[in-house]
Amino acid sequence: MPQTTTPPTSTSPRHRVVIIGSGFGGLFAARSLKRADVDITLIARTTSHLFQPLLYQVATGILSEGEIAPATREIVRKQRNITTILGDVTDIDIAARTVTSDSLGRTAVTPYDTLILAAGAGQSYFGNDQFARYAPGMKDIDDALELRGLILGSFEQAELAAIRGDKQEAARLMSFVVVGAGPTGVEMAGQIAELSKRTLKSDFRHIDPTMAQVTLVDAAPQVLPAFGDRLGEIAQRRLEKMGVDVQLGAKVVDVDATGIEVQDVNDPSGYARRIEAVAKVWAAGVQASPLGPTVARQAGAETDRAGRVKVDPDLTLPGYPEVFVLGDMIALDDLPGVAQVAIQGGKFAARQVKHRLAGKPTDPAFHYVDKGSMATVSRFSAVASVGRLRFGGFVAWMLWLVIHLFYLIGFKSRITTLLHWFISFLGRGRSERAITEQQVFAREAIERLGEAHQPHLP
Amino acid sequence: MPQTTTPPTSTSPRHRVVIIGSGFGGLFAARSLKRADVDITLIARTTSHLFQPLLYQVATGILSEGEIAPATREIVRKQRNITTILGDVTDIDIAARTVTSDSLGRTAVTPYDTLILAAGAGQSYFGNDQFARYAPGMKDIDDALELRGLILGSFEQAELAAIRGDKQEAARLMSFVVVGAGPTGVEMAGQIAELSKRTLKSDFRHIDPTMAQVTLVDAAPQVLPAFGDRLGEIAQRRLEKMGVDVQLGAKVVDVDATGIEVQDVNDPSGYARRIEAVAKVWAAGVQASPLGPTVARQAGAETDRAGRVKVDPDLTLPGYPEVFVLGDMIALDDLPGVAQVAIQGGKFAARQVKHRLAGKPTDPAFHYVDKGSMATVSRFSAVASVGRLRFGGFVAWMLWLVIHLFYLIGFKSRITTLLHWFISFLGRGRSERAITEQQVFAREAIERLGEAHQPHLP
Repeated sequence: MPQTTTPPTSTSPRHRVVIIGSGFGGLFAARSLKRADVDITLIARTTSHLFQPLLYQVATGILSEGEIAPATREIVRKQRNITTILGDVTDIDIAARTVTSDSLGRTAVTPYDTLILAAGAGQSYFGNDQFARYAPGMKDIDDALELRGLILGSFEQAELAAIRGDKQEAARLMSFVVVGAGPTGVEMAGQIAELSKRTLKSDFRHIDPTMAQVTLVDAAPQVLPAFGDRLGEIAQRRLEKMGVDVQLGAKVVDVDATGIEVQDVNDPSGYARRIEAVAKVWAAGVQASPLGPTVARQAGAETDRAGRVKVDPDLTLPGYPEVFVLGDMIALDDLPGVAQVAIQGGKFAARQVKHRLAGKPTDPAFHYVDKGSMATVSRFSAVASVGRLRFGGFVAWMLWLVIHLFYLIGFKSRITTLLHWFISFLGRGRSERAITEQQVFAREAIERLGEAHQPHLP
Repeated sequence: MPQTTTPPTSTSPRHRVVIIGSGFGGLFAARSLKRADVDITLIARTTSHLFQPLLYQVATGILSEGEIAPATREIVRKQRNITTILGDVTDIDIAARTVTSDSLGRTAVTPYDTLILAAGAGQSYFGNDQFARYAPGMKDIDDALELRGLILGSFEQAELAAIRGDKQEAARLMSFVVVGAGPTGVEMAGQIAELSKRTLKSDFRHIDPTMAQVTLVDAAPQVLPAFGDRLGEIAQRRLEKMGVDVQLGAKVVDVDATGIEVQDVNDPSGYARRIEAVAKVWAAGVQASPLGPTVARQAGAETDRAGRVKVDPDLTLPGYPEVFVLGDMIALDDLPGVAQVAIQGGKFAARQVKHRLAGKPTDPAFHYVDKGSMATVSRFSAVASVGRLRFGGFVAWMLWLVIHLFYLIGFKSRITTLLHWFISFLGRGRSERAITEQQVFAREAIERLGEAHQPHLP
């Protein structure tokens, strides 16, 4: 049942703002409060701010994790009104206005006057969480490094299979499936194709990495649905030119250690066919942080199937004007789950807080300015949708390059990032191919499960 | 019982050389056989060549793992006579001349005409392997990333402890112990001190990272014993100036989750005192790969306590001239366990093989040319011992910088490495501070054990 609470007012001791999450929303909210007379506590599960749009480049050996994930406390080092703490938020009490977080078994309770909830979203397997063990998602640094080990490790295992004379197994190990044809899926499929066709081309003696089979699967009728059909077609043609097998209208119904099963959405018989692949990437679907439902339940607010909170037009929790919810956690006006929604939301929330404290009128509604969206398909080729303009190819790619360099928040990383890109785009190399033993172990677990698996009969 | 076997001769099919290990010894042997009429199989447990002298920079956030560990198959890509395979060598049969390796539960048996055994050494805990769980070693990428998480994570936990008001715990979490005052230990102690005094200086709000306590412990009477007492004193003074507590003549007798216990080697009472520290680094002692004892046993050759094989003067296993043993795996003329011994040994073995195949006389003995050794203590300060010259300070540091840049084998990494060094040496930043969840979990395990631990009574 919604309770109406009074908005915070400027009193002494200083107004306390708690921000949950160090992604785009949380970080931009924090930075926009730089000159505000507030005490900010930023609580995050990781020590770094992840520049998620480039995660696929860590997974495919172009960038190091440090380049896309600068330490949060280094970014806000000069902002003296902010305390950054590492913690997994386990509860929020919107009546008592407290946030409970856990770190290594120790609990911290942090009171707030304003709460900015920007905990983002994780991968969704649409109720089939068991798929996660065979098809890692693409949400954090661990995912990216695990996929790096899985993809590069598959070629290593294929070489061994070829030496043993087992050509079938070698082919199976050089088959890759990417589920989900949104920007991340398109980028991953394109990068795996480039990895095999260019980077690894001459690195093996018994397999031909250029024969690797990359399949991109989605239940939707086109790739990049959010970009419209013209750009979808451009991206699809470009992927197919690179040898990627694009299978649309194909719904994934099962995932196991050695492959996936898909159903044609237009086939009423429900026949499931199999695509063999040891290495699989899950880039389909997101599930908002469970903290959204936690506060929604207390406020009597609605959430959608993806766990996103139906917020008021000013991004606050209904009945709780001191609780802002941002980015991937909200269901409002069909806003897409992109960085710009979080960034603009973070700035908006900060401005609202400042206006309230100054006794100025606040804005009744958040207005999202669509600055356009883009996705890289391969080096030198991207698609971009800016206002009414929709274009693909080299110009779109250059735009992508400039914008991503510009937005990378950890300023010091830019020069090395530029260099790594230079190496990767102009040469054939990728300098970040190191795999840890931990990742080899993860790979090993998957493979052993694979051996125990009984293949389905068609 | 030693068997005498005949040296390989040039016959068709081509002479098969198997190299075990992708470290300095194995890689330089492989590269030196570039133009030889041989088929080389390089078997290694990791996919990359680790430039171990810079591992401490990965552990302390300066470099990324890719910069010090380029992919082995990329390094030897153009050398068409070499097949690189990923595998853990589980057995060597020197009578049958076969190497058995395992990868993800699959076994490969590789026959050889010449074997070059260069599997290096791991950390030795001098019979106390249980110490490893609390004090990670410094031998591979996993160790370095785990230590990165442990060191940076300790400051995160200290901040939380300070917010809780637990000053004692905060101080305990900001105490670091490095065991072993050889080059790696000196470099780690210096880097942790710099991290706290410079990089993290302004990053926290409730703790003062510059108050971190770094203790360097060794049973030896001086730091850097191999460098002579003058350089040892220079290094020690420099460390002490940076605030490192150097405790010499102190033998570690116990390690647990929250600290270590040391005995003064000159104190006959055997009294053990405690040094509190959650984060500990073990940089003392090496144990050669168990593959040395495996072949030694079969050949009736001797091994020393560290598992090193007493080879003939030409680096071959007694009675088995077709088996070369290199680098950290050999006990010969008190050769030190440094990269140059492995590199020169690898080149020597390759030359011997080529001479044998050409029917030319081989060299009866390996002659090591000491090119000098160096260790960095802090930025702008190193010690170097070259021939009879022994010097410290800025000139030694410049020499260190030039030589390490020059020797970094993955050529493409050099520019980004130079940049990361520039950032780290001239600025106060370190761009590679990203920690994975896996490492946070490792840290968590250690910490929970810490809570269960009952402190010893003095």
